[in-house]
Amino acid sequence: MTTTTTTTTDRIYNFSAGPSVLPEPVLRQAQTDLWNIDDSGIGVLEHSHRGAVISRVLQEAEADCRAIAGISDDYHVLFLQGGASLQFAMVPMNFLGADRTADYLDTGSWTAKAVKDAKLFGNVNVAFEGKAFGYSRVPAGDEPALTPDAAYTYYCSNNTIYGTQYPATPAWGPNLVCDASSDIFSRPIDVAAHALIFAGAQKNLGPAGCTLVIVRKDFLAQANDNLPPILDYRQHADKGSRLNTPPVFAFYVMGRVFKWIRDHGGLDAMARNNQAKAKIIYDAIDDSSGFYRPVARTDSRSLMNITFRTPSEELDARFVDQAGAQGMSGLKGHRSVGGLRASIYNAFPREGCEAFVGFMKEFAERSS
Amino acid sequence: MTTTTTTTTDRIYNFSAGPSVLPEPVLRQAQTDLWNIDDSGIGVLEHSHRGAVISRVLQEAEADCRAIAGISDDYHVLFLQGGASLQFAMVPMNFLGADRTADYLDTGSWTAKAVKDAKLFGNVNVAFEGKAFGYSRVPAGDEPALTPDAAYTYYCSNNTIYGTQYPATPAWGPNLVCDASSDIFSRPIDVAAHALIFAGAQKNLGPAGCTLVIVRKDFLAQANDNLPPILDYRQHADKGSRLNTPPVFAFYVMGRVFKWIRDHGGLDAMARNNQAKAKIIYDAIDDSSGFYRPVARTDSRSLMNITFRTPSEELDARFVDQAGAQGMSGLKGHRSVGGLRASIYNAFPREGCEAFVGFMKEFAERSS
Repeated sequence: MTTTTTTTTDRIYNFSAGPSVLPEPVLRQAQTDLWNIDDSGIGVLEHSHRGAVISRVLQEAEADCRAIAGISDDYHVLFLQGGASLQFAMVPMNFLGADRTADYLDTGSWTAKAVKDAKLFGNVNVAFEGKAFGYSRVPAGDEPALTPDAAYTYYCSNNTIYGTQYPATPAWGPNLVCDASSDIFSRPIDVAAHALIFAGAQKNLGPAGCTLVIVRKDFLAQANDNLPPILDYRQHADKGSRLNTPPVFAFYVMGRVFKWIRDHGGLDAMARNNQAKAKIIYDAIDDSSGFYRPVARTDSRSLMNITFRTPSEELDARFVDQAGAQGMSGLKGHRSVGGLRASIYNAFPREGCEAFVGFMKEFAERSS
Repeated sequence: MTTTTTTTTDRIYNFSAGPSVLPEPVLRQAQTDLWNIDDSGIGVLEHSHRGAVISRVLQEAEADCRAIAGISDDYHVLFLQGGASLQFAMVPMNFLGADRTADYLDTGSWTAKAVKDAKLFGNVNVAFEGKAFGYSRVPAGDEPALTPDAAYTYYCSNNTIYGTQYPATPAWGPNLVCDASSDIFSRPIDVAAHALIFAGAQKNLGPAGCTLVIVRKDFLAQANDNLPPILDYRQHADKGSRLNTPPVFAFYVMGRVFKWIRDHGGLDAMARNNQAKAKIIYDAIDDSSGFYRPVARTDSRSLMNITFRTPSEELDARFVDQAGAQGMSGLKGHRSVGGLRASIYNAFPREGCEAFVGFMKEFAERSS
C-alpha cells in the first residue's frame, strides 16, 4: 500500500522549522485584508500605523495575547522586530553591566549565540554546558551551578535544532529570562515565574518579522540607561510598541493567530493537541526496531521539533526526497547537525502527522 | 459642482505619509502568494527562509534593486529590519567612536533623533541647525560648517514631517551617509556619491518591517569590531541578509515593488511622474491667492510630502474631514507640527492628485 497525502487543497504538509505553517483561516483573512481591511478602502500594508484601523489591530492583539496566556498587569506586552537575535543583544544591554553577572544555560546553538552577545556587556556564568552532552538534553532543576544574586538567569525553553524542550518551567530565581521562540503558546505558560520572555513569531505566532516580549514591570524598572531608544525596552513600553513605524503586517497576522488560538480552545487545547501529535511520531520512532534513532534524550524530547536519524546519511537524504515527492516538505535537519527533523507547531494538522508515520513505516520497510 | 473621487475599485485615495499606498498589481500578486507561492503548495509566509523559493525571492530582489538604481559591485545591498530608527543607532555604533567626529545636518525630527543616538557613541558636530529656520528648508551646498576628516557626514534627503527635500545630492566628502527613507527610488539616485544609504521601506519600497541598506565595501571595511552580530553591518553582509530569520514577507513585497518600478520605466520615469504629480498640487497652493500657505521654502519643496496650511487650525480640521468624506485619506499633518500634508509616493496615482486639487479649489471657494 502506498500512503499518499491527499488533501482537499493545493497546499502540502509543511514540516518547516520556521518560518512554518500558519492556520489556513488566518491566511484567507489576510488575503482579503491585503486589499481592503475593515471596508476602509485601504489594505493592511498601507494604513498609517497610528490611524484608527491599525490602532485597533494592535490593541486587540495585545488584549488577546494577555487573555490566552493569562498575562497580568504586572507585565508589559511588547511587539518588537529584529528577531530573537536582537533580543540576544538587548537583554544584556538592558540588564547586564561590567559589575554584574548573569547565568546562562547553554542547551544549543541559539543559547551559545546569546552567551557570546552577553559577554560583550558584562560577566557571564555558563551554569550548564550542554555541548558536553551533544546538546541531547536539558539540565535537571538542581543541576546548574547558579550565581547568588545573578542579574538574571537565561534559558531557552525549546531548542529547535536539537529537538529538546524543558518539560516544565525551571525554578531558578526571580529574574528568569526565557527564549521561548519555538514553543511559545504551544502549552500553558507560567508567565509569573519569569522576568522576561521573548519569542520570534515565526514558529507558533505568525510570520517572521516580529518578536513578542513579555517583561515584568519591576524588572524593567532596573534596566540600564543611556541606550539608543530602539534598543531600550523602557522606551518601547512607554510608546506602546510604536516607538517607530512597527512591522504592521507581522503584528496583524500575529493578532489573527491569537484569535485562532482563542477560538480553538486556548493553550490547554493547544497542549493536548500537540501532545497527541508528537506521540504519533515518537511512537513511530520507538516502534521502528531501531531503524529510526532519536537525537534527544527521552526526558528532554521536544513536542515541537522531532529530531531523528535513519541508519545512514544516504538514507536520510533519500527519506527527504521521497517524503517531498509525497507532499511532505521541510524534513531536513538543520544544516549544522544534519539528520531529519519534523516540526509540528500549533498550526500543523494532526492528519499530517498520521500521513507522515504512514510514510515512515513504508520507508523503513523498503530500506531495511 | 461637487468633485467626487470615483474609482473602479473599492479602494480610496490614500495620502498617508507611511505606511502608504502600494502598487495594486503587487497587492494582487501577494494575495495569491500568501496561499501558495510558485505552485509550491506553501504560502510565502510559511517557507523556510533558506529554501529554494525564498532564496530566489531574495536573489531577485537584490538583483532588481541593483539594476534599477545602478548599484555597482563596490556596494553591498542589505535587507535588514528595525526601521530607520535602528539605523540611527547602527551607523554610529559601526562607524563612530570616542576619538572620532561625525558631521550631522539637522533638517527635521528624524535627523534630530539620529544626532541624539550618535552622541551616545562619539563626537557629533551639528553642521547645520535647521530648527533655527523652523525646519522650513535644507542647507545650501556651501552652508554647513563641516569637520575636516569627519568619520562621516550624515543627512536626510527628504524630511517627511516638514515636507523638505534636497534638490540634488550634496557634495560633502567621501563618507556621505543618507537617510533616504522617504524619497528613495522616487528619482535617480547617485549611489557612488555615498558611503551608506538606508531607507525604511514603508514609503516607496514596500510595507513597514524592512530596511534597505546600500553600503560601500571599502567604507564597511573600516567598521568597528566587537558588536553583537545583529548590530554589525559586516555580519549581515557576510551572511547575505540572512544572519538570522529575516522578515521574509516584507522582503518579498519589496522585491515585487522593484519589479513594478522596473516595468514602469525605472527611476527616470518615476522622477518624471513624481515631478508632474507634485506640480499639480503645488500649483494649486500657489494659485490659491494665499488661502493655502506652504510650509517649506520654495527651493526646498519635497516632491513626496506636500505640507501646507489653511488660514486656521479649525479649517485644517474641516479640510481633513471633508476630504475624508470624498474618499481622500491621510491628509492630517504629523502630530508634532499640525497642518496638512499630502504624501504622494511612487505608487500614488496622478488621477488622485487631480481629484485632490479639485477638492482643494472647492474647499477654498466654500471657506473664503
